[in-house]
Amino acid sequence: MPESTTFKLTIAYDGTGLVGWQRQPEGTSVQGLLEDALTRLTATAGVTVTGAGRTDAGVHARGQVASTTLATRLAPADLQRGANAMLPPAVRVVAVEAVDATFHARFGAREKRYAYHAILGPVISPFDARYAWHIPFPLDVAAMRAALPALQGRHDFAAFQSTGSDIQDTVRTISEARLDEEPAEAGATRLVLTLAGDGFLRHMVRAIAGSLVEVGRGRWPADRMAAILASADRSQAGPTAPPHGLFLVSVRYC
Amino acid sequence: MPESTTFKLTIAYDGTGLVGWQRQPEGTSVQGLLEDALTRLTATAGVTVTGAGRTDAGVHARGQVASTTLATRLAPADLQRGANAMLPPAVRVVAVEAVDATFHARFGAREKRYAYHAILGPVISPFDARYAWHIPFPLDVAAMRAALPALQGRHDFAAFQSTGSDIQDTVRTISEARLDEEPAEAGATRLVLTLAGDGFLRHMVRAIAGSLVEVGRGRWPADRMAAILASADRSQAGPTAPPHGLFLVSVRYC
Repeated sequence: MPESTTFKLTIAYDGTGLVGWQRQPEGTSVQGLLEDALTRLTATAGVTVTGAGRTDAGVHARGQVASTTLATRLAPADLQRGANAMLPPAVRVVAVEAVDATFHARFGAREKRYAYHAILGPVISPFDARYAWHIPFPLDVAAMRAALPALQGRHDFAAFQSTGSDIQDTVRTISEARLDEEPAEAGATRLVLTLAGDGFLRHMVRAIAGSLVEVGRGRWPADRMAAILASADRSQAGPTAPPHGLFLVSVRYC
Repeated sequence: MPESTTFKLTIAYDGTGLVGWQRQPEGTSVQGLLEDALTRLTATAGVTVTGAGRTDAGVHARGQVASTTLATRLAPADLQRGANAMLPPAVRVVAVEAVDATFHARFGAREKRYAYHAILGPVISPFDARYAWHIPFPLDVAAMRAALPALQGRHDFAAFQSTGSDIQDTVRTISEARLDEEPAEAGATRLVLTLAGDGFLRHMVRAIAGSLVEVGRGRWPADRMAAILASADRSQAGPTAPPHGLFLVSVRYC
């Protein structure tokens, strides 16, 4: 039996049709696909893969990070090639490195970066439809931008956490909150909300995106964001934006 | 019964899972989806939609053009909105205009522009896998570029036509042949072959793409392209590149 090696995997996935990162009793999960591929590849039982963040059903990732400890002599490049040969095209291991045995993808994560994509305009291109929220009505992007500074820094984000979550400590620090506009296909405009922070509550990015759209369509003033935070009440925030616009972009470690 | 109006439709589609532009006895075609949507929308029987080019199964379009004459009083914007409400997200009408009754999407087309996308590198991102040919081995892009000038101008392209085609006149004029390189996701490189011309034979762009890859991998010298053209023999050209890398970009009319 070879000695164990801990690996850091960087993974991209198209979340369409997946039940999310975490293995579930039913449906196809990224964790399940990876664990099954690595089990076959290393011919060892009980392979466990830990993800930096548990993305929900339908959410995509460009740079999810996972850690796993395997009893294998496979080099990182062989592990990557072998895993990709077994995974469906919707899930790709984009990088593998051997790391110290103390590396833990979840507890070691210092900063996560998410992007929420929306397409503004009457028509969304077929090439964007799987990867962005289509918003056919006009939005006041300047007002949405004005709402962002209230989110930055250390706050209790309980108002943006999905109800029924059992997380006790809902204080998080947002280090970056940005809204970028660029031309999109079919004459539309792409709006990208980028949020980076030390951690995110369940549905937090999507609830923030949904709240910003309420500001953008003129239902709420930009300064309501501070009041929502202060309320710590989910019913004060906007609707949860759909999962297919959300991407886990990257995870930073020390 | 309202008077008839001829419309020019610009259509984008994700060809994944479609049998191509043309209606077939089995499977879902873009023409079939459009004709069915316009039939329901105008409540008239026998709606026919003519496309500028018959893209094959799995081929995508950003700017396919179609013409149709309808007994309707619907304004172009209403026709567009109504059709999009009935079409699946993979097919979008991106523009509609009322045109002269003599407009014919196929016979009036002066120039068509195609792009063939390939991703070079060990790993193709899940977001590119449906829309580009994955080439995991290195290519000599300079050699491929050197092969392009031979294609430009007026030539008999019979060597690049799929066998079994019943087209007699295989002379076409290529006005532009270009190969662009840009960074892609997952550390890969995107290669885009752009071909514009007055018309294209069946599988012509894909056979040219497949031949260029033979040059790029060093199997053939760059100057073989002229010899392939001169042979007028399909067996002299390279393999037909897979359909999912091909996009009909635009069609120009006078």
